Amino acid sequence: MVNYGPFLSANAKRMKRSEIRELLKLTRKPGIISFAGGLPAPDLFPIEEIRKMTDLALQKDGKNALQYGPTEGDNRLREELAKIMRKDGIDVNIDNILVITSSQQGLDLVAKIFLDPKDIVMTGRPTYVGAIQAFNSYGAVMIGIELDNEGTQTSLLDQEVQKLISRGKKPKFIYEIPDFQNPSGITMSLKRRKELIDIAEKYDLIIIEDSPYRQLRFEGKSEPSLVSMNPERVIALYTFSKILLPGFRLGWMAGPNDIIQKVVTAKQSVDLCSPPFNQAILTEFLSSGLLEKQIEKIIAAYRDKRDFMLKKLEEFMPKIKGLNWTRPQGGLFLWVTLPEGMDAGDMFLTAIEKNVAYVVGSAFYPDDGGKNCFRLNFSYSGKEEIGEGIRRLAETVSEWRGRSRRSSFITP
Amino acid sequence: MVNYGPFLSANAKRMKRSEIRELLKLTRKPGIISFAGGLPAPDLFPIEEIRKMTDLALQKDGKNALQYGPTEGDNRLREELAKIMRKDGIDVNIDNILVITSSQQGLDLVAKIFLDPKDIVMTGRPTYVGAIQAFNSYGAVMIGIELDNEGTQTSLLDQEVQKLISRGKKPKFIYEIPDFQNPSGITMSLKRRKELIDIAEKYDLIIIEDSPYRQLRFEGKSEPSLVSMNPERVIALYTFSKILLPGFRLGWMAGPNDIIQKVVTAKQSVDLCSPPFNQAILTEFLSSGLLEKQIEKIIAAYRDKRDFMLKKLEEFMPKIKGLNWTRPQGGLFLWVTLPEGMDAGDMFLTAIEKNVAYVVGSAFYPDDGGKNCFRLNFSYSGKEEIGEGIRRLAETVSEWRGRSRRSSFITP
Repeated sequence: MVNYGPFLSANAKRMKRSEIRELLKLTRKPGIISFAGGLPAPDLFPIEEIRKMTDLALQKDGKNALQYGPTEGDNRLREELAKIMRKDGIDVNIDNILVITSSQQGLDLVAKIFLDPKDIVMTGRPTYVGAIQAFNSYGAVMIGIELDNEGTQTSLLDQEVQKLISRGKKPKFIYEIPDFQNPSGITMSLKRRKELIDIAEKYDLIIIEDSPYRQLRFEGKSEPSLVSMNPERVIALYTFSKILLPGFRLGWMAGPNDIIQKVVTAKQSVDLCSPPFNQAILTEFLSSGLLEKQIEKIIAAYRDKRDFMLKKLEEFMPKIKGLNWTRPQGGLFLWVTLPEGMDAGDMFLTAIEKNVAYVVGSAFYPDDGGKNCFRLNFSYSGKEEIGEGIRRLAETVSEWRGRSRRSSFITP
Repeated sequence: MVNYGPFLSANAKRMKRSEIRELLKLTRKPGIISFAGGLPAPDLFPIEEIRKMTDLALQKDGKNALQYGPTEGDNRLREELAKIMRKDGIDVNIDNILVITSSQQGLDLVAKIFLDPKDIVMTGRPTYVGAIQAFNSYGAVMIGIELDNEGTQTSLLDQEVQKLISRGKKPKFIYEIPDFQNPSGITMSLKRRKELIDIAEKYDLIIIEDSPYRQLRFEGKSEPSLVSMNPERVIALYTFSKILLPGFRLGWMAGPNDIIQKVVTAKQSVDLCSPPFNQAILTEFLSSGLLEKQIEKIIAAYRDKRDFMLKKLEEFMPKIKGLNWTRPQGGLFLWVTLPEGMDAGDMFLTAIEKNVAYVVGSAFYPDDGGKNCFRLNFSYSGKEEIGEGIRRLAETVSEWRGRSRRSSFITP
């Protein structure tokens, strides 16, 4: 038997399998209603349109669609992506745009070009688990800044950054999900956005703006994106996973051309280029104007599901002091906080027994916070499932109410 | 203006844009005949079959094809990949197999899990430029071992490894392309394969076996793959880019399950999963038995092109001592060596002026070797182009013969 341990890099030794992933395995039992994953609703996938656009792409230029492509991405597609951004008030051209193999790759690539072991990254507290994984794999130290209902508390951020700089530990970048944040569902207010940009300018910092859900706004008006407020200091990540479908693994990065050039070099050694086949189909889809209609469909369906989940939470959840949840204006998730002392990790097995699943809050913390929180996804399940699932979940919470048992099950 | 320099990681500072890539830009001028890229022949792409298989995949289970998938890859696809390997005499099951977003991603992922800065990797001299880039991006020190017409000179490898170990610098792995090596076209003899495996066992080393061309054998019999000779010590990389089409960006990795598990964890933070849409189409393609026919078609076409290129080299190249080229039994490339003192980098601009392109040999060297060599691709161009291109190339060589000018153009 070969002992592979001594061959592993520091990198590999740092890697932990995602807690979400391990927990998700438990949610695969039959009969379970899972609010755990971040999956879009598959019944909204435009299967027939994708079939048609595939035909069209193969017919127009099949040889090109099946060949290697440029690392930057197909130029026609980059032009379509620039158009999407310009409609959103962001002044970009294709030189600012790089097609990536999902926005998760974007996180890996920015980590690759910016992070050395022990470098500091500022994140939300909580924040997206995939970002924690990506930054962790490069040995970054993440410092989480508490959110309130206006998003990242910029005054805390300012204090923390100042303190770090005075210790000679200037952060490499600030990671933000300003719109319908994952996991909390919170959207950053305009005031906070301005303050965040001020902080970046004052301390000479870069911001990574992760925008997977920005286009999925159910009501109210959009605040300006961070990248529109300072295109020199913001690198924006977008994905088609939530606004169209995840199965193509396509997203894009927008930023200053100097940075894009560096990322292109990094991407060369990572996968040469994102799938030209998928890019060709997506180009046809976008240039046919099908995305707008698709987003409208998704918004209508998810708004309805969110409303229903909120209604059922009101209806079924016990009236306990300290138990509350967010009311997101878009996106895929809402965030439940249990009274202090209740542990969502401990409660998880009971939930699974009752055939309902969520993601424990601690998965989204770069430190050991979030134990009394959990994330609920409302995009994937049908309404009937949402109703029944929330009933089961409320039953679980009621049973656990007051219990102060703190087992050691599921610790990161 | 923001100065991005201070934000960059050591990683990013090490990255160099691929020299090939920069040179390839020069080859985009109209009228040029390029033997530079490693592109498969697009007129062999089975466009109509891909269209049909897309229909089939979307019809059978479109929702699944367009959704997120498991990081390991689709199980039906993994089973098809295991079948391909078992036909090649390799005893694997799906637990040994990970679907990757092209074999370039495989190189990045093995580098990620094995390499810390300054770790040693043994490579061929020359070797695949994409591997040099991937390993370099993790700060590896590559030590190249000379090839002869039987492949890597294992006696030199043994000496070098022994020397390194005695200095406390045990290599992390040996990187090999045993079949129709890129760039040389050389195939490793059975004797050398056995010696290589012996070295890995004697010194407790891992081998990365990169097999993009193995199935493209034009004549003669296959030697056993390294992974079949010691499945505990060999991680094998395969891609569909050369045996089917590159536009899907799909390949696979096979190895001990312990290693595959580690790579899966690394892949989670890199792109979550390879495109399920492409995987679904490929699964239909493979299970319909279409790959065998496709490979037969490719072999027949490339054999013909190789024969033609060899014939034209004989016909047109000046008879100079020290000018010779390899005669590969498969794959996409052959390798030309110029007499000592002639510099393929210096000669490149003249070649471009004469509307013919190659890749300078130095791109494939982890050190500063290869100056008097270049790589020719015979898969992409049509026969007429091959004839004319080789004529132009021979003219270039003749003109440069005897010149000993050593300009500083194109140094890595």
